Order: sequence, then structure tokens, then C-alpha cells
Amino acid sequence: MTQFDQESIYQQAKEWVLEAGAIIRSSIDQPREVDTKENANDLVTEMDKQTEEYFAKAIRSTYQEHRILSEEGFGDDVQDLDGVVWIIDPIDGTMNFVHQKQTFAISLAVFCDGVGEIGFVYDVMADCLYHAKKGQGAYKNEKKLDPLPESKTLEESLLMLNTIWCTPNKKVADEPIRDLVQTVRGTRSYGSAALEFCYLAEGIVDSYISFKLQPWDIAAGVVIFKEVGGVTSQTTGERLTFLHQDPIVSAHPNLINAISDYIELKYLI
Amino acid sequence: MTQFDQESIYQQAKEWVLEAGAIIRSSIDQPREVDTKENANDLVTEMDKQTEEYFAKAIRSTYQEHRILSEEGFGDDVQDLDGVVWIIDPIDGTMNFVHQKQTFAISLAVFCDGVGEIGFVYDVMADCLYHAKKGQGAYKNEKKLDPLPESKTLEESLLMLNTIWCTPNKKVADEPIRDLVQTVRGTRSYGSAALEFCYLAEGIVDSYISFKLQPWDIAAGVVIFKEVGGVTSQTTGERLTFLHQDPIVSAHPNLINAISDYIELKYLI
Repeated sequence: MTQFDQESIYQQAKEWVLEAGAIIRSSIDQPREVDTKENANDLVTEMDKQTEEYFAKAIRSTYQEHRILSEEGFGDDVQDLDGVVWIIDPIDGTMNFVHQKQTFAISLAVFCDGVGEIGFVYDVMADCLYHAKKGQGAYKNEKKLDPLPESKTLEESLLMLNTIWCTPNKKVADEPIRDLVQTVRGTRSYGSAALEFCYLAEGIVDSYISFKLQPWDIAAGVVIFKEVGGVTSQTTGERLTFLHQDPIVSAHPNLINAISDYIELKYLI
Repeated sequence: MTQFDQESIYQQAKEWVLEAGAIIRSSIDQPREVDTKENANDLVTEMDKQTEEYFAKAIRSTYQEHRILSEEGFGDDVQDLDGVVWIIDPIDGTMNFVHQKQTFAISLAVFCDGVGEIGFVYDVMADCLYHAKKGQGAYKNEKKLDPLPESKTLEESLLMLNTIWCTPNKKVADEPIRDLVQTVRGTRSYGSAALEFCYLAEGIVDSYISFKLQPWDIAAGVVIFKEVGGVTSQTTGERLTFLHQDPIVSAHPNLINAISDYIELKYLI
């Protein structure tokens, strides 16, 4: 079993997350002469890479044995979760970053032998840090989040999803998703998976489905949501791999099966 | 032509909106012994009525000639927009109020002879006031909002809609809406029409469609969005009535027709 000093790694990671966020904020606020779509896209690519490189350098110089699973090419070729693995999305919610310059997040998780030990989701522009250590509860800044209340029924609940899943697509049968949308009380969509997990943890929405998320989009959010009693699994009922693009459902444990009943994955048919 | 002192009515209305918001905040923050769904629904009904009554009393005692168009029964039987008409939704975003205790708004507009002169949308829990006077620009708190930038194409834009319009419904053909969702770059849904208009005005989303909104849901938002160059019309191209439930499209003027092409109203077929 791998040695893992949860508290010291948590403190170190927190420092890096806040520092990386401050760098992004200072860049995004810089006035730019031209801010066309193309330039905005360049900006996000540049900031994504720069931020991931920041984390990769920091981690490698401090924890030589740890590995990094991330999007932009500064990570390792991670095929298993043995030992300590940092799972990082430097900017989650790219479209929000480009279009809104707000409501995007740094998502950083630390796993040890396949277990999510630490999660950070940092809403950079709001300077709002969601964070959790396994077994220690989840926090929004300094405020400890309440455990999930008693389960709502599906009919009383708010579901988060990308509306695209209600339209013909390659991942999931869209007609049952439309039935699900008509069953729940309402739907919401905010454009950042990492933050959407935090909204689940805050209890302001009740469930979330998605079918094309990568490990770095979800790892930190899963750790945080679990600390208030939330469950995230594959829509097939299997455990998340944190290695591949898994179809996910995230909710109060009592809602998971009811939601999964509406999910017909196309690549399993 | 009706006499209308825009500035003094604006100042008076602003005072009332802030005061009503403070009352809601103090009520919502009160700890409650039981906060089940039923009680939460009671709370919203009670707060809705109480807030509307607050406005109705204040307006009637100050402006005897003015009329009120509102939801909860304290308004007048308004069949035209002659003279001065206050159009009020005491709590827009009821589901957010109940489930989230945030991201709902007071929406208040003042129309004179059918023209939107003043608009307030107050995000109560964030203490964030969007406001506009016709011809004077739109503001978020003290900050004047920029005019809309040059139009994006539909393919580059973010659309707000309730996902329910992608599913079979009585108002609009759902298949073309799904085509629209696949055409735009992304979709968002926040659960308060009044605030969604303000997000248009801020430029963080580009367009909005809805098919069951009442005048009090949209009046203030339309006034605010217009001040940055935004257009709101019926999806048929006709002007809004502000008297009935109109099917609406709201966007940069260059996007209105492109979006409307996807809208097939069922009750006109």
C-alpha cells in the first residue's frame, strides 16, 4: 500500500491551486486590443497549457514518485491508478471561459491506489474554492457543506444535463432522455462539469448526467460530492474507471437507479 | 400623451425594489424547524403574495392613476397598456427560490403608453441590481453594461432555453428545436427568465427562447436588454404584447431571424 500523507499533500495542492487561479485571473483581466473569437480561443489554449505546465512542474519537482493524468500533454501516460495520481483539468468549462470569462474552474484531484483522497474545484473568477479530503467532509471556502438531505423523488428533483443529450447523438438514445426531462421537476445547465458537481454538493441541484466526460473533468468533483453523501457511477451501475470516458450519473444514492433506468447507451446496444 | 417623470419614478421604484429584496432576504435566512418541500412551497407562495402586496400598496398610495399588471392577485385587470402600467413579478424563478434559495429575482418594469421606460431585475440573494431607463443605458449595480458586440453567427453562439422545449409539448414543434440545439455552439439554462435577460445584457450568453412566459416574467428584462442593443420579439416576428403569453426570441438583432427559422408554433399550425 502506498504511503500517502493526505494533510500535507492537501496543503501543498491548495497553495498551487490558489496560485494558478491568481495567474489566470491576472491574465483574463488584461485588456486585449482585439478580442475576436479566434483570439479568445487562442487565449484558452494558451491558458490551459500554461496552467497545466505550472502544475506539472510543481508536482514533479516536489513528488518525484507521483504521476499526472491530464489533458494538455504535460501529464504521464497513465493506464492504471496505482500509487499516487494527480488528475487535473487546468480549465474546466472552456466555453464559459471563452464566452463568459466566468464560471470556469480549475479541477484537481489526488488519488492514491485508485481511491480519491483529495479534491479541489476552484471557481477562479468568483474566487470560490470547493475542497474535500476523503473522510473529512466537503467545504465551500471555509464553510462545511451539509450532508445531503433525505432523498427527493425524481419528480421533485432538479436535473443537470447538457441539452445536446436530448437530441440525436452517438452516445445515448435521446428519446428516453427526453422522457427523463419530462419526469423531473426541472433542468439546469451551467457549462462546467467540475462546478456542476459542486452545485450537487451544495444541494442546489439534485442530479447530473453526462456521457462524454474525461477523468479530469470529474475526478475532483466526485471526491467533493462523495463527502456529503452523493454517489457517482457509470450509468450501467459499474464503478467509474477514472481512466476512460465513462457515462456518468451523479445524485443522491436513492436517485441513481431511477435515473439510470432512462439511460440506453448506444455503444452497448 | 401621458405625463411621465422617468427619473423620479425610477428613484422611487428603486427604493421599493431594494426594500422588498431586503424583506425577502431576511425571511429566507430565518431558520425553520421543518423545511420539507411542502413548507418550501408554502414559503414561496407566501413570499410571492407578501412582496406583490408590498408593491401594490406602495404604488397605489403614491401614484393613484397608475395601474398594476402582476401575477398574484393584487394587480388590476389590465387589458391595454394605456397610461402608466407597472408590470411586476415579485419572485421570478420560483423553482430556484424553493430548491436553491438563490438565483431568483424581483422583476419590475414601468411602461408608459405601451413603451418600456424603466426596468429593474434584482438578484435578491446576490444583492445584484440590474436596471435601465429607456435611452440611458443598462447597469449592473453601478457598472454601465457595454453595448452588444458585433453579432456572432448562430454556430458561434450560446443559446438559453428550457430543455423541455426539446421534448414533445403543446407550444412548439420539438424536432426543429433539437436541430437548433445542434446548430448552436452550446446551451445554458439558469431557471429565472428575468435573470436570463440580464445575462443576455451582460453578453455572457447570446440568445434566449421561451414559449410560456407571462408579461411580468419578461417586461423588465426586455427594457434592460434593449438598452445594450438587444432585440426581443415574438417568434413570428410580431411585436410583444406585454399583455399575453407571447412566444419569444431574444438576441442580437442579427440572430433573431436565424433563430426564428427553427420555431414552429403549434397553435398557429
